[in-house]
Amino acid sequence: MHRTKVTVVEEALDANNTIAGANRADFDRAGVTVINFMSAPGAGKTTLLERVVASLPGVRVGVLEGDVQGSLDADRLASLHVPVVQLNTDCGFGGECHLDANMVRSAIPALPLDEIDLLIVENVGNLVCPAEFRIGEDARVMVTAVTEGEDKPLKYPLMFRACELVLVNKIDLLPHLEFDLESLLYNIDQVHPDVERIILSARTGEGVDAWREWLLGILARDEVAA
Amino acid sequence: MHRTKVTVVEEALDANNTIAGANRADFDRAGVTVINFMSAPGAGKTTLLERVVASLPGVRVGVLEGDVQGSLDADRLASLHVPVVQLNTDCGFGGECHLDANMVRSAIPALPLDEIDLLIVENVGNLVCPAEFRIGEDARVMVTAVTEGEDKPLKYPLMFRACELVLVNKIDLLPHLEFDLESLLYNIDQVHPDVERIILSARTGEGVDAWREWLLGILARDEVAA
Repeated sequence: MHRTKVTVVEEALDANNTIAGANRADFDRAGVTVINFMSAPGAGKTTLLERVVASLPGVRVGVLEGDVQGSLDADRLASLHVPVVQLNTDCGFGGECHLDANMVRSAIPALPLDEIDLLIVENVGNLVCPAEFRIGEDARVMVTAVTEGEDKPLKYPLMFRACELVLVNKIDLLPHLEFDLESLLYNIDQVHPDVERIILSARTGEGVDAWREWLLGILARDEVAA
Repeated sequence: MHRTKVTVVEEALDANNTIAGANRADFDRAGVTVINFMSAPGAGKTTLLERVVASLPGVRVGVLEGDVQGSLDADRLASLHVPVVQLNTDCGFGGECHLDANMVRSAIPALPLDEIDLLIVENVGNLVCPAEFRIGEDARVMVTAVTEGEDKPLKYPLMFRACELVLVNKIDLLPHLEFDLESLLYNIDQVHPDVERIILSARTGEGVDAWREWLLGILARDEVAA
């Protein structure tokens, strides 16, 4: 039974990777850099996007919003006058807990790829499955909020390993928490040594410049590669 | 394709429910009341357990810890001298994002059912899939932390609907957040009208007495039903 299950899962991931490759080819053709943006529920992904999507000099940003249900985040971002497409995962049974390549593929026709340079895909809030499914992205970024505790890298190692940038958010709350930032950074290094990290607060704006610079760097890298 | 997928999922849930029934029969035979305890990562489940497991008068508590990897929470709880069994979900591929009835079934031989009255199953931190899989529990309880924002019931409605108690945690941080508690409670009522809720802080202990009382009430209910 166990063996069969593993085989089926591997086949599903192979199929996902094939579709992710097709997405990537479409994005490359249109000259769009794609970020897969992930975190636990409530870590601050949408606020971190609000901080940057309308203030990247010369960069036209679009957002693909993944949610089990509703369009709360998409509505927030649309108010910044950037193109936003909502993708809900609640067809089927209780709702998929992640975006996969096929879901993103189904959204491509609704995306104005010729009018944007950077597409940020806000994944479903979840620290497990989103890390397992490539969607055709150029880079994966995750957010961990200091309110979640120092132990998250050790409990959800794949997510921290899968990303090339970790945003450590909500540091404005540090004076009010029993939280050891050094311990979190140490735990991050245990599962993904030397991964890039930016310490910031979406609320106060501290560190947001570095997040903006990082995005500009990824766009430049993708341009060189093209 | 879509139709086939839905059918497979329904069959998987049927199989899960059958095994959950077998678990429930085993728990009932041993006179053990079982709580399925769920939340997003870092909402405070383990700290909320630390607050009650050793201080329920006359009640012998056991804990089943579900994690993708590691035994950090189990180690914390074992220091309170209650029996703790660790269940890791990372066999297979990148790790299952929830406990299902079969995983819990595999842990039953390791559980000292004859020596406990209450078993609390701490599920994997995730607001989507854990709500879809019954494990043979008597009641489902979820934690939502005020640091996660007011919108979570609308974004993860199945989780809020599946539970008979919502613990609203981390209220010691309210003075430091832009957070409207009334708005959260309103949103909870939108998806699960009048569901029981306890407003508390695992850190300061405010509201923890009500959480302890609620557990005693469930034990009394289960005894009457038996």
